[in-house]
Amino acid sequence: MARIVMKFGGTSVADVTRVRNAAERVRAEAAAGHQVAVAVSAMAGVTNQLVDYVDQAAKISDLREYDVVVSAGEQVTAGLMAIALQETGVAARSWLGWQVPVHTNDAHGSARIESIGVEQIIQRMEDGQVAIVAGFQGVSPDGRITTLGRGGTDTSAVALAAALGAERCDIYTDVDGVYTSDPRIVAKARKLDRVTYEEMLELASLGAKVLQTRSVELAMKHGVRVQVLSSFENSPGTLVVDEDEIVEKAIVSGIAYSRDEAKITLRQVPDRPGVAAAIFGPLAQAHINVDMIVQNVSTERESTDLTFTVGKAEFDRAVKVIEKNCAHLDYEELSGDRNVVKISVIGVGMRSHAGVAQQMFTALAGKGINIQVISTSEIKISVLVAEEYTELAVRALHSAYGLDAD
Amino acid sequence: MARIVMKFGGTSVADVTRVRNAAERVRAEAAAGHQVAVAVSAMAGVTNQLVDYVDQAAKISDLREYDVVVSAGEQVTAGLMAIALQETGVAARSWLGWQVPVHTNDAHGSARIESIGVEQIIQRMEDGQVAIVAGFQGVSPDGRITTLGRGGTDTSAVALAAALGAERCDIYTDVDGVYTSDPRIVAKARKLDRVTYEEMLELASLGAKVLQTRSVELAMKHGVRVQVLSSFENSPGTLVVDEDEIVEKAIVSGIAYSRDEAKITLRQVPDRPGVAAAIFGPLAQAHINVDMIVQNVSTERESTDLTFTVGKAEFDRAVKVIEKNCAHLDYEELSGDRNVVKISVIGVGMRSHAGVAQQMFTALAGKGINIQVISTSEIKISVLVAEEYTELAVRALHSAYGLDAD
Repeated sequence: MARIVMKFGGTSVADVTRVRNAAERVRAEAAAGHQVAVAVSAMAGVTNQLVDYVDQAAKISDLREYDVVVSAGEQVTAGLMAIALQETGVAARSWLGWQVPVHTNDAHGSARIESIGVEQIIQRMEDGQVAIVAGFQGVSPDGRITTLGRGGTDTSAVALAAALGAERCDIYTDVDGVYTSDPRIVAKARKLDRVTYEEMLELASLGAKVLQTRSVELAMKHGVRVQVLSSFENSPGTLVVDEDEIVEKAIVSGIAYSRDEAKITLRQVPDRPGVAAAIFGPLAQAHINVDMIVQNVSTERESTDLTFTVGKAEFDRAVKVIEKNCAHLDYEELSGDRNVVKISVIGVGMRSHAGVAQQMFTALAGKGINIQVISTSEIKISVLVAEEYTELAVRALHSAYGLDAD
Repeated sequence: MARIVMKFGGTSVADVTRVRNAAERVRAEAAAGHQVAVAVSAMAGVTNQLVDYVDQAAKISDLREYDVVVSAGEQVTAGLMAIALQETGVAARSWLGWQVPVHTNDAHGSARIESIGVEQIIQRMEDGQVAIVAGFQGVSPDGRITTLGRGGTDTSAVALAAALGAERCDIYTDVDGVYTSDPRIVAKARKLDRVTYEEMLELASLGAKVLQTRSVELAMKHGVRVQVLSSFENSPGTLVVDEDEIVEKAIVSGIAYSRDEAKITLRQVPDRPGVAAAIFGPLAQAHINVDMIVQNVSTERESTDLTFTVGKAEFDRAVKVIEKNCAHLDYEELSGDRNVVKISVIGVGMRSHAGVAQQMFTALAGKGINIQVISTSEIKISVLVAEEYTELAVRALHSAYGLDAD
């Protein structure tokens, strides 16, 4: 007998029939003798509808009231799931964020969980009652409803699993696991049986929309074993676990890509101390997130080219901020490019293997793909290339690292 | 400067544009220097949708979970109204039932308000903040969400007005007041400027769907001055007040009708002690509400005819209950009739005027309408007639009591 947390995303509870199907999965785990807690999202589309109401009501909204409106979707699903479970003969009750309570800070709209009071829930679970917790929501120090940001129910589920000391946190979704690459563009992509927290974190932040990034951070911090699996199939999914649990480490586990980046280049920037701060300071103040940064060595004229990437949505704003704040730097030219894609090779194994980057550059060169920017971390190499090469580059790398399915 | 409560029903907040219009009305009252609390319903149609989800999830639902689901609609409107008000420049915040708190008993699905803790809200109101209270909901002694039954936001508003010692409780709805009769069938119906609690109570329970009956009881008990008025027009509505506030009392204030009744007659019931209890006991145990009861004086054979009415929806069940439990009474025949309508003449003035009933019987006789059952109370005379005479009877009585508009 184990204690487990099950999380159902929006597509898994998109209508009452699906809520009943999800309840059947919960019933099966309870019947197997497990103590079960369930975290539920809003029905698919509901949160968007509520956000749309808020947008119609005011140009800029009080985030405390935004949270009151958008948290209603998870409340509905929690009650329905409790009813559907009771209908299968399993004792169950719903718990809203303030009832658990899920204590968060007061950063409304993207609050962070600070602690979860699980005493009541544990007592009920030990008495055989399934706890259905409304995901995405918590309660602030002054008793207002908070929400955790989009995809927040993943975080609710993992935080609950950590607080309950659960053996596993099963994330039911509309895909059957984590793949070596996006199956929509790489036909030979394989489902991974296991992936490390670090790899999942890179995959999540690089566009694999399977898990909210913060939920992976939280799982890593508390050592929560997470399983990503499908609500619509009966096959095992992908386990996200600590590196120690993976005996045969692949050098490269996956190839990710993100079309959300745009590139900005400042040519012939004077090469003197304080210039980088002068450029990136105003961007930071404008809350524009800069991702990759490359600065070449100085030329003979004591100036250099500086290239960096920002989110596509921030591109126009970023250009304006630079033009307004950096004119005194006497750079020669500001140029931008939205037609870029960031392609990343991820794997904890590359820590102990040389030549992984070289293999990437060779594979791309072999297809005639020019690399514009390179950035690396301990377990990841990312390059920026022209967007039109996305599929070609991802497939070439998938083959080059031996990830293709047979 | 006064303290007032404003209530907006589902049609008054049916979409975000209407929420903004309602907010504009609130802004105007706040700008006039009033301290304002607002009670809001769910957007029209939302509660029905949520009830439908519950019905799809299980045949019989845990009412505690039903309340979790169906209370979500008012939560959404409360947040949106707060946002819309802030957009007009007025300080506002939403209050959910558990936040106020609105303490109720634990009769989930139709809970009764036991007390409202208004200290926080009063403090905010005195600081110039408008309180937007989610209607229809409260919190049980053990911290679960409760709901007050359909139309419960009227009750929320009146209870709030009582707790706040408000000068007035304005109920904004889709009609512009209380009429002398249903304008859909009586073209000459007039809007009443004032009506007493007692009359409103009879009108509400007799099918005038303007106010929830319990809200009128509550207003009467606490002396809350209620105004019924339209969200869509700018004319004064109808004030529901104590009898003392009405100087010129009309003998008859209105003519109501209800097609929801069905008639059951037991012929030749033995006329001996305990028979009525033997018949109505089983009906009460089956939670069937009996309205009008008429028993004629005994015939020579020491038996009598007994006629009573039940809700049309309960008719089949009532007949079965009688057949199963009352066979030993040796009544001669059980007959039923669904094609009946109850027509009522209401007015506090009839307390001090004789001949009001006679006037009713004469008017109906004049149109050739046969009266099947009569029942009276201090301020009401109700008769049961064949349903086909509904319009004819209501119009005839409306004219007979001098209620027709010029």
